[in-house]
Amino acid sequence: MQALKAQYEQRGPVPQDVIKPVPFDTPALAPGQALVAVLAAPINPSDVLMLTGGYGMLPPLPAVGGSEGVGRIVELGADVAGLAVGQMVLLPAGSGTWATHLVADARRLVPLPEGADPQQMAMLTVNPATASLMLSEFVDLKPGDWVMQNVANSGVGGYLIQLARQRGFRTVNVVRREGAVAAVQDQGGDVVLVDGDDLHHRVKQATGGAPVRLGIDAVGGMATERLARCLAEGGTLVNYGLMSGEPCVVSAQSFVFNDLTVRGFWLAKWFRVATREQQRALYGQLTQAMARGQLKARIHATYPVQRIQEAVAAAQAGERDGKILVVGQG
Amino acid sequence: MQALKAQYEQRGPVPQDVIKPVPFDTPALAPGQALVAVLAAPINPSDVLMLTGGYGMLPPLPAVGGSEGVGRIVELGADVAGLAVGQMVLLPAGSGTWATHLVADARRLVPLPEGADPQQMAMLTVNPATASLMLSEFVDLKPGDWVMQNVANSGVGGYLIQLARQRGFRTVNVVRREGAVAAVQDQGGDVVLVDGDDLHHRVKQATGGAPVRLGIDAVGGMATERLARCLAEGGTLVNYGLMSGEPCVVSAQSFVFNDLTVRGFWLAKWFRVATREQQRALYGQLTQAMARGQLKARIHATYPVQRIQEAVAAAQAGERDGKILVVGQG
Repeated sequence: MQALKAQYEQRGPVPQDVIKPVPFDTPALAPGQALVAVLAAPINPSDVLMLTGGYGMLPPLPAVGGSEGVGRIVELGADVAGLAVGQMVLLPAGSGTWATHLVADARRLVPLPEGADPQQMAMLTVNPATASLMLSEFVDLKPGDWVMQNVANSGVGGYLIQLARQRGFRTVNVVRREGAVAAVQDQGGDVVLVDGDDLHHRVKQATGGAPVRLGIDAVGGMATERLARCLAEGGTLVNYGLMSGEPCVVSAQSFVFNDLTVRGFWLAKWFRVATREQQRALYGQLTQAMARGQLKARIHATYPVQRIQEAVAAAQAGERDGKILVVGQG
Repeated sequence: MQALKAQYEQRGPVPQDVIKPVPFDTPALAPGQALVAVLAAPINPSDVLMLTGGYGMLPPLPAVGGSEGVGRIVELGADVAGLAVGQMVLLPAGSGTWATHLVADARRLVPLPEGADPQQMAMLTVNPATASLMLSEFVDLKPGDWVMQNVANSGVGGYLIQLARQRGFRTVNVVRREGAVAAVQDQGGDVVLVDGDDLHHRVKQATGGAPVRLGIDAVGGMATERLARCLAEGGTLVNYGLMSGEPCVVSAQSFVFNDLTVRGFWLAKWFRVATREQQRALYGQLTQAMARGQLKARIHATYPVQRIQEAVAAAQAGERDGKILVVGQG
């Protein structure tokens, strides 16, 4: 079968210049394999960093872009149990999902509830898990507690708001421009503020001075310090992204006098240390919530694999409100 | 009795301009009090920050400078047990020790072994405790493990080298100028390097690539990041000072991909949470080690209280090798 994949043979500073659509013939299946037609696969910031070489773990070249997604089974090799042609499945993490088709080890495909929205389910593996774990792994939050984040209009940011609400936490959400405020309020953010020098005063006003013990930063630079200044004594700041491209800046005063702890979160690292049982528990919950429509992300635009360069360029544009998805021919 | 104290009535950016020697008459003693003639009291960076207002805890004004020291009992009020005139004692922490005499609650005076060097003992409360706790509170180090610090030629730095050796740890010591290397080697530093951009390569070479799980930073700015880059995955960086006056800079890559934790250490905070038993245990060990000459700091110069402005100016000079002490008339 004639298929298409978005492949890169080298890395470079302009990610849309290194990736291109490459036709290929789907191979004959070995026992235990499945051929899957990809329905949808998102472009995450980490995928773009793999194209530029800025990520902490890089696949050997040539590589196919994309690290998560949803597909429908087209053909099964010998010796595959528990799956059927036509079934909707979650693709294995890190499998080069920007393609019309891919061949996978059938044991790594997770059947999804029929009727679930494939474009929403395509974003399950990376962002909701990141948001969920950052809310649970660092600070023991109780219902009523406040958590604060910047880039609240990102994929992770939107899931974090929804998950926090479901757990009874309240959120202070920081965005970088006025135009992003309404969408974050729509997703259920309790407080939404535009970043700026007097941020900690405005946060104090909005929360009535309640302690904020967890802060989540995906920007770096002085935005990290502005967030740190909003946290209670003994609080924890977790960085998971580098949107500004600048290193994190935090005053020694915050560390020494305010007993701040700064940590990082990386989902790939969690996968290395989490037990199968912990992974199943997390993804079981998230799958159910997403299939029921309780976890949703906004989608800015979709692109076929053929237009991968436009898609990657769009994913880096500053003013979008929602994810860019690569979609199959289906 | 005519006495002298180094007092400040306001705070300001130039610390030697706000402090001055002020004569006073020692008061009649109330029951439970002791009059102590101060033998020696150091000028610590935290003392200078109290004069400028840059510290996390500021005494009400007017205040007498100095937060630790050693004295000899001159007179005892009624109802004091267990102390004798002529005895050498450790002064209470934070008691305004830059003076020829001070009146203290006798229960807060700790008798010191006769024969111990009063100038060395004067530095017991702050720096050795800071060094000792930073070696034990954050990372569970085992004999043979490496620890790394910058400003290795500071008071805390020197104690840290000595305490690390006594516990079987090896030290990578970073200084800011070539001229400071020899003194740090003399104190027992295993590796001594001058700070610079390729620091992590030189550290790797010197340690044979052994993991460094604890890094101790008193500089801030890019020096923090240079130290962070030398640490093993999952390592901890502890900041306790702000020598550069710049906020700490640490790349998001260090947090996210290298699982770095950054914390702060403040002795005043430890005092708030440590039990009496923990405090006694720590200071018991340090007193014995210091009285035996196993914990020593270099002394750059001593000044009488009358010359407090020169002393404070000298404490801020860049190229000194050792502490500045304020000494009594004795």
